[in-house]
Amino acid sequence: MNIKKIGEVKNQFTDPVGPEEMKGIISEIIIKEEYADGLYKIEENEYIMVVFAFHLKEDEDYDLIGERRYGGEKGIFSSRSPRRPSSIGVTVVKLLSRDDNILKVKGLDAINETPVLDIKPFAENYDSVDKTD
Amino acid sequence: MNIKKIGEVKNQFTDPVGPEEMKGIISEIIIKEEYADGLYKIEENEYIMVVFAFHLKEDEDYDLIGERRYGGEKGIFSSRSPRRPSSIGVTVVKLLSRDDNILKVKGLDAINETPVLDIKPFAENYDSVDKTD
Repeated sequence: MNIKKIGEVKNQFTDPVGPEEMKGIISEIIIKEEYADGLYKIEENEYIMVVFAFHLKEDEDYDLIGERRYGGEKGIFSSRSPRRPSSIGVTVVKLLSRDDNILKVKGLDAINETPVLDIKPFAENYDSVDKTD
Repeated sequence: MNIKKIGEVKNQFTDPVGPEEMKGIISEIIIKEEYADGLYKIEENEYIMVVFAFHLKEDEDYDLIGERRYGGEKGIFSSRSPRRPSSIGVTVVKLLSRDDNILKVKGLDAINETPVLDIKPFAENYDSVDKTD
């Protein structure tokens, strides 16, 4: 499979904290120079989807069924836990600004140095619950 | 990076068609037996996020800037095109039913035999535009 690290997260969180605490903060996403052209017109989007890697050693182990942060015992696919078979995280964030290859975003629940794999524009027809029906 | 194929899409589309045409159809997602326990309580979710691989040979090539289906020339990260540096697709779908390791969903824009990498519950606080502010 074709998976590339296109950039990296920069923020003040070097260790995981609760997602609620992270949702309010502002992060930078530094896109590698070789991929920077791919950001052309990204600023037309108020919201973007960030696809990233859960890269911590502790995230490599997972339980198919276990106690989750919310709602007790659940399967891993019924949970947003970072400890899962495929170490991929997805979060929709607000795009505050772009300065060349650097995106400033609000609401990214990924710690400092998290590898970023993809950026997609948030799209009503793909991502919104109302439009999925 | 830890990326696993946890299952596969089953529907009538063996070749890509426009996303609008695919959004209305019903697909099955067959989860491998070894991961089936991870679906425990998935049926509590009306909507789920499906993370899958763009697996066609033609998806391996990409242009950082190019003409897109919508809105003319854009960077690849301003587009949902399957031809991108990391071959990862993400779509929110409606979960119609679960029968053991088989999920029936509506709105998945992925063709037959697409490898599924992850399933996540749709979460207002991670995925919704309104709650991201």
